[in-house]
Amino acid sequence: MPNIYLDNAATTPLIPEVEERIREALSLYGNPSSLHTLGFEAEKVISRVRESLARLLGAGQVVFTASGSEANNLALLSGAEKNRRAGNRIITTNSEHPSVLECCRELERRGFEVVYLSTREGRIDMDELEASLDAPVCLVSVMHTNNETGAIYPVAEISKRVKKRYPRALIHSDCVQAFLKDSFTLSGLGADMVSVSAHKVHALKGVGALALLKPIPLAPVIFGGGQEKGMRSGTENTVGIASLGASIESLAKDRERTQRLSALSDRLVTLLSEVDGVTLNLPERKSPTVTNLSVKGIRSETLLHSLSARGIFVSSGSACSSKAKTSSVLEAFGLDKSGLEGAVRVSLSGLNTEEEIEAFATALKEEIQRLKGNR
Amino acid sequence: MPNIYLDNAATTPLIPEVEERIREALSLYGNPSSLHTLGFEAEKVISRVRESLARLLGAGQVVFTASGSEANNLALLSGAEKNRRAGNRIITTNSEHPSVLECCRELERRGFEVVYLSTREGRIDMDELEASLDAPVCLVSVMHTNNETGAIYPVAEISKRVKKRYPRALIHSDCVQAFLKDSFTLSGLGADMVSVSAHKVHALKGVGALALLKPIPLAPVIFGGGQEKGMRSGTENTVGIASLGASIESLAKDRERTQRLSALSDRLVTLLSEVDGVTLNLPERKSPTVTNLSVKGIRSETLLHSLSARGIFVSSGSACSSKAKTSSVLEAFGLDKSGLEGAVRVSLSGLNTEEEIEAFATALKEEIQRLKGNR
Repeated sequence: MPNIYLDNAATTPLIPEVEERIREALSLYGNPSSLHTLGFEAEKVISRVRESLARLLGAGQVVFTASGSEANNLALLSGAEKNRRAGNRIITTNSEHPSVLECCRELERRGFEVVYLSTREGRIDMDELEASLDAPVCLVSVMHTNNETGAIYPVAEISKRVKKRYPRALIHSDCVQAFLKDSFTLSGLGADMVSVSAHKVHALKGVGALALLKPIPLAPVIFGGGQEKGMRSGTENTVGIASLGASIESLAKDRERTQRLSALSDRLVTLLSEVDGVTLNLPERKSPTVTNLSVKGIRSETLLHSLSARGIFVSSGSACSSKAKTSSVLEAFGLDKSGLEGAVRVSLSGLNTEEEIEAFATALKEEIQRLKGNR
Repeated sequence: MPNIYLDNAATTPLIPEVEERIREALSLYGNPSSLHTLGFEAEKVISRVRESLARLLGAGQVVFTASGSEANNLALLSGAEKNRRAGNRIITTNSEHPSVLECCRELERRGFEVVYLSTREGRIDMDELEASLDAPVCLVSVMHTNNETGAIYPVAEISKRVKKRYPRALIHSDCVQAFLKDSFTLSGLGADMVSVSAHKVHALKGVGALALLKPIPLAPVIFGGGQEKGMRSGTENTVGIASLGASIESLAKDRERTQRLSALSDRLVTLLSEVDGVTLNLPERKSPTVTNLSVKGIRSETLLHSLSARGIFVSSGSACSSKAKTSSVLEAFGLDKSGLEGAVRVSLSGLNTEEEIEAFATALKEEIQRLKGNR
C-alpha cells in the first residue's frame, strides 16, 4: 500500500506541473536586480507571478516574502506601526497562527493593546467584537480558515463592522489555509492585506506573499538592498516564486477542485462519525480541507505514530507549534483535557482520493481497537 | 560564442552536483516540524547540512534564514538589543552591505550610537578604530570581503582590539562574499557570528545562515512557530538548504579552487592594466573574486549594456543597490566623480576560465574604443 498523506495543512507534495516549472527555472540564475539580460530574465519571471497572484486576489500590490509567517510579520508589525496614529488597539482572535499571535505579543511589548476575540467552537461572537470597538483600532488580523479546526471565520463581516466605526483601521487576514482552496479576493473579504504561502499549495517551501489591496508603503521587517519596493530586502527566490506561479496556473483553473474536496470531506466526516471512540470537533462553518477529531483515552502522539508506521500521515496539532504539549487553538475551541490530549488533525488536498479516505478510516478504527485493547 | 558570466558577486549559476541534489530533494516534501516519518526525513536532511556548515565554520550553532540579508538583520538587530547592557555603541564600516547599513540606521532610530569606520582604498585605520573605543561597545559588524571592491577587511585584528577593551562586545562579520571562496572559521576571525548565503556559491536563492560561535539565544526578527530554536520562524526551506549542503560538499573539497581563482584574478588584473582608459580600483588586500575598475568618460550603464549585448555580464555597483545612481561603497573607497560614474565590477567564480577572461578583456577594449569613437 502506498503512503496516504493527510497532513496537507502542514505542507503539501509538489504536483507535476510545479516540478516541471522548477526544473525550467533552475537555469534562470541571474540576480533579478542585475541590470543585464540574465537579471531581466529572472525579474520577468517574478513579475509574471506577481501579476497573476495580484489578479487572482484582486491586489494592487504583492510583496514576496520567504514564508506565510514572514508575510504575517510584515502585515502585523509594520501595519500596526504604520497605522499607530489611527489607534492603539489591535483586534485579533485567540486561535490565530503563532506567527500572528507572537507578533501580537511583540506589539504588546511595544505598547499596543491587543484584544483576543474568543473562538469557541470556531465561532466569533459579533457582540464581543462590537464591545472591543470602544477604543480606536489601528489593525485587525483575523484568519480566513483556521489551520487546526478548519473553522472559517467571518472576515468580511468583521471588516464591515470595524470599518464602519474606524474607517482607517487596516484589516489583515491570514489566508494561508484558504489560498487556492477556497476562492476569495481582498475586496470580497474587506481586507487591506492578506497573507498566502506557496508550500501549502503544492509549490516550494521558502515563499510567501503579502497581497495588498492598494499599495501601502510598509516599513520593512528585513532591512537592506530595498527589494520589493523597499518592503522586503534580500535577493528574490526566483525558483520558489516560479513554482508558486505554476501552482496558481494549475489550481486556479481546476474549478472542480473545491467541489471534489467538499465531497471528500463529507465522506470523511461520515466515515469518522461511525468510528467508535471518535468525537468530531466540528466548527459551524468548516473548510473541507481540515477536519479535527479527538479519540478519548488515547494520546494523539501514540495514534500518530501507529498510523505513521502504516504509512498514513496525519498530525496532532499544527506542525508550526508541534513543541507545545496540547494545542491552545483547540483549547480555545473548547475541548476538555481528554479531547485535547487525543486530538488528531486530518487535512486534505486535491490529490487525495476517496480510497485513501476509506483506508484511513479503517486504519483508524483498527488502531483505536488495538490500542484500547493493549492498555 | 556562449555567454561569459562575470557577475558572480551578485549571484552564481547552479553547479551540476547542486542541481542533482535539488532534484533528489524535491520529493522530500514533509514539513520538518511534523512528527511523522515524512517530517523526520526532511528534518534529517536539514540537520545534516546544519552540521556540515557548523563543522566548516567552527560554529556551535547555525540558524538558517532566507538570505544573507536576513542573517545580517538577525545578527545586527537582535545582537545589538541582546547585548545593549554591554554598551550603547556599535562599530561598523562605511562600506558594508546595505543589509548591515540599513540595520545600523534602524538601530540609530532605536537609540544606539553607530560609528562608521572609513574604508578609503579598502583600508581600515587601526588608529581610527582605537579612537572609536572611547565608549562601551555592544556590537561590531565588519565584513570579511567587500562585495564591490573585493577589499579584505582585517576582521581578526579588529576583533582582538575591541575584545581587549570590551570583552563582552559581540563581533559579527558578513562573510557572504568570502564563504567557500576564502577559507575562514569563526574563531580564526575572532567572530561570534558570521553571515553566509547559498546563492553566492552555486546553490539556490532563498537560503542564508547565521553561524554562531556559541549558542546565543537571539530574539527573532521573524516571530512565529519557533523554528530554528525560536530564533527564526517559518517552515524551513528543505530544498534550498539541501542545495547549500551540496555546495558545501562540492566546494569545500576542491582545494585547488582558491589557487585557480587567484591565477585567474592575476591574469585579469594584468590584462585590464593594459587596456587604454581603464583605471583599476585595487585595494591593498584584495580577494581574487572581485575586481573593480573605472573607465573614465564612459558611463558604467552604457558599457554594461554594450557588453551584455555581446553576452558578457558584469555589473556597475552591486545588484543589491542597483537603484542608487553611484555607489556609496566606491565613494568611500575614494573614487572621484568620473571614477564613480564609469565603475565596473568584474566578479569571478570557480567556473570561469582563462579564455573567458581574455575574451572579456578584448571585448572591453573594443567597446571602449567604439564608445569613445561614437561620442
